[in-house]
Amino acid sequence: MSVSIIGTAHSKMGKLVDESIYSLLVNAGREAMKDANVTGKDIDAVYVSNYGGPSFNKQSHLAPYALEIDPDLRFTPCTRVENACAAGSNAVKEAILAIESGRAETVLVVGVEKMTSLKTAGVTETLALASYYPEEGAKGYTFPGLYAEYAKGYMKHYGYSVEELYDTLGHITVKAHKNAMSNPLAQMHVEFEHEFAKTISDKNPLIADPLKLSDCSLVSDGAAALVLTKTDLAKAKKDKVVEISSIAHVTDYLSIVEGKRATYELTGAKLAVKKALEEAKLTIDDINVAEVHDCFTITELLIYEALGLAEPGKGREAILNGTVQVGGKLPVNPSGGLKAKGHPIGATGVSMFVLIARQLLGEAIGLQVENAERGLVLNIGGSGGTNISSVLTRIK
Amino acid sequence: MSVSIIGTAHSKMGKLVDESIYSLLVNAGREAMKDANVTGKDIDAVYVSNYGGPSFNKQSHLAPYALEIDPDLRFTPCTRVENACAAGSNAVKEAILAIESGRAETVLVVGVEKMTSLKTAGVTETLALASYYPEEGAKGYTFPGLYAEYAKGYMKHYGYSVEELYDTLGHITVKAHKNAMSNPLAQMHVEFEHEFAKTISDKNPLIADPLKLSDCSLVSDGAAALVLTKTDLAKAKKDKVVEISSIAHVTDYLSIVEGKRATYELTGAKLAVKKALEEAKLTIDDINVAEVHDCFTITELLIYEALGLAEPGKGREAILNGTVQVGGKLPVNPSGGLKAKGHPIGATGVSMFVLIARQLLGEAIGLQVENAERGLVLNIGGSGGTNISSVLTRIK
Repeated sequence: MSVSIIGTAHSKMGKLVDESIYSLLVNAGREAMKDANVTGKDIDAVYVSNYGGPSFNKQSHLAPYALEIDPDLRFTPCTRVENACAAGSNAVKEAILAIESGRAETVLVVGVEKMTSLKTAGVTETLALASYYPEEGAKGYTFPGLYAEYAKGYMKHYGYSVEELYDTLGHITVKAHKNAMSNPLAQMHVEFEHEFAKTISDKNPLIADPLKLSDCSLVSDGAAALVLTKTDLAKAKKDKVVEISSIAHVTDYLSIVEGKRATYELTGAKLAVKKALEEAKLTIDDINVAEVHDCFTITELLIYEALGLAEPGKGREAILNGTVQVGGKLPVNPSGGLKAKGHPIGATGVSMFVLIARQLLGEAIGLQVENAERGLVLNIGGSGGTNISSVLTRIK
Repeated sequence: MSVSIIGTAHSKMGKLVDESIYSLLVNAGREAMKDANVTGKDIDAVYVSNYGGPSFNKQSHLAPYALEIDPDLRFTPCTRVENACAAGSNAVKEAILAIESGRAETVLVVGVEKMTSLKTAGVTETLALASYYPEEGAKGYTFPGLYAEYAKGYMKHYGYSVEELYDTLGHITVKAHKNAMSNPLAQMHVEFEHEFAKTISDKNPLIADPLKLSDCSLVSDGAAALVLTKTDLAKAKKDKVVEISSIAHVTDYLSIVEGKRATYELTGAKLAVKKALEEAKLTIDDINVAEVHDCFTITELLIYEALGLAEPGKGREAILNGTVQVGGKLPVNPSGGLKAKGHPIGATGVSMFVLIARQLLGEAIGLQVENAERGLVLNIGGSGGTNISSVLTRIK
């Protein structure tokens, strides 16, 4: 059963002082339903993606609150999915399964996170719960610390110097912030100089050696939403239709520090991309635009290799030769990515689907990749435990 | 696509000092897979149900830990579902959708909760996050307090005196503890006298007026697991097969105190039971055994009416005339229920499926309902926001 997107919504991301987890959820849901031209009567199921509601907002059991989106949603099944930073794409996947099962025709997915209700220390601690806590969080590993393991593992495995790493990561930072300048919903509208981004300084301190402040994504509030339906119905309803051609979900070990998986590559993410392309019967050369999980600049570097844009250990070529720039062969994160657009955890995966769908519709939020017909999403949870990739195709 | 159960597992419930959330998850998963005679290679997806890991155990993103169950599970998609006390049956539902979608043939579901790592005040606060926090938890409502609203609403609507209520609830308490005496995995093996259970005393104090200690379910550690597969495969593999004939998920408003839903009945649960019976093309008269969500004795009283075992306002007849006793027309909670068997939140829904499946196989955990062929599950989340009901049938 083919599933397509008929409505999208995307909030501003950032420190949204006037918004609560509730208002973000309700507004995104309403906006997506309006865009899809459906009412609560048309919705057969709702999936809500949220990571840290219990800690950030003292709210578990968030899914039933989705009924507040529309009075006609009352009694519609609402489910919360949580898989760390990949909760959003996991919710999209469960929505697709609901349609493919034949139990639902039209499904609303809302991803939401309100992080800035806690101060930095509380946010750091809450995020650390997505690690394997006894061996990671409890032993002082923060998420920058866990991804620093990748940076160190990558340098060691490929004989890469810290200067080379900083030079490469600096270019990734510059690209993210440059792209975000055109995205009205991005959290940061500040350009970065490469010299600044590649250098440790008072304004760009080490967060977790070797990762600097400029290598880290943001603490954000935000929401995104999608209405999905059977492709036949979508075609009847809409002038332009984006199909979800594939979705692959690959789980790898929760812990990175225990040594059971590589630190020089994103093994699970690489496999998820491979499966998503195979299911769509495409290769990476067929993809015109990608939104991927740059929670840290090192993650984006590893993703270039997971996507097959460069040989293992040579990911830097993809940024140095312009491949991943808007106008290049495969623009990566034209939105600015988690690094500059923002990273409201539970919303992030849904945001990626919204951004790619809008690219393929020719209605990009921010920079438009010209004539994009096929796009790819790669959303990662934890330090690489959860990996979900999807190919989207404009089919009408 | 018909889905059946081919493996079950159920831990002891209670304060399990030697068990962690991790060991409970892994042991239940392994036991269910062993019972199903499958290995990690046979499992296409894992669904993990857990409510309070972030608070009780400092662990979000629990799903990937399921890979530790079996080395061959590596890369298998693992998803966490959370919907308060109905998380377990919600995870079962998502597993069914995965099979019905055609993307999976055989799925493992594990429900787990490790609550006793926090002291009582911490448990109470963590559970309150399943309310609509701004209007309920933040205003001092605990879960006993929210269900006390039902007790008060019921008395008011039907002109029921507190003496009548206490008499009725006392009988429900007595039944739960009597049944649990035969359940080797139950948390409490203590019989209650009706006189004690119906009376406020030093040893049976008010918890939230009018609910007494003897009206409340338990704080528990525990896990339960299921292996589900397509019915055709199940029939080929097993001598006896229990099919999941229907599953209905009904979401009602998150908040009970805001007045948007009735407090004299469980509106969403009633609708979920109706839909589950309709999907299975059965009536309540066809059901031989039920495991239902007696988080409080008042909840079980309301469930008698939601099931249609008594007219609205006359639920007490079902316990007074023996209908719901083992040996009666429809034994309810032969396991002892949440009240005496225990209520490890994320495990509870899965436990209900395990208990009913074992009844229908003639291999009950505890009291066996003779010749039971069809059973019903009713799992409720929050104060009635999430409601999931299912009919199970022995088909071979």
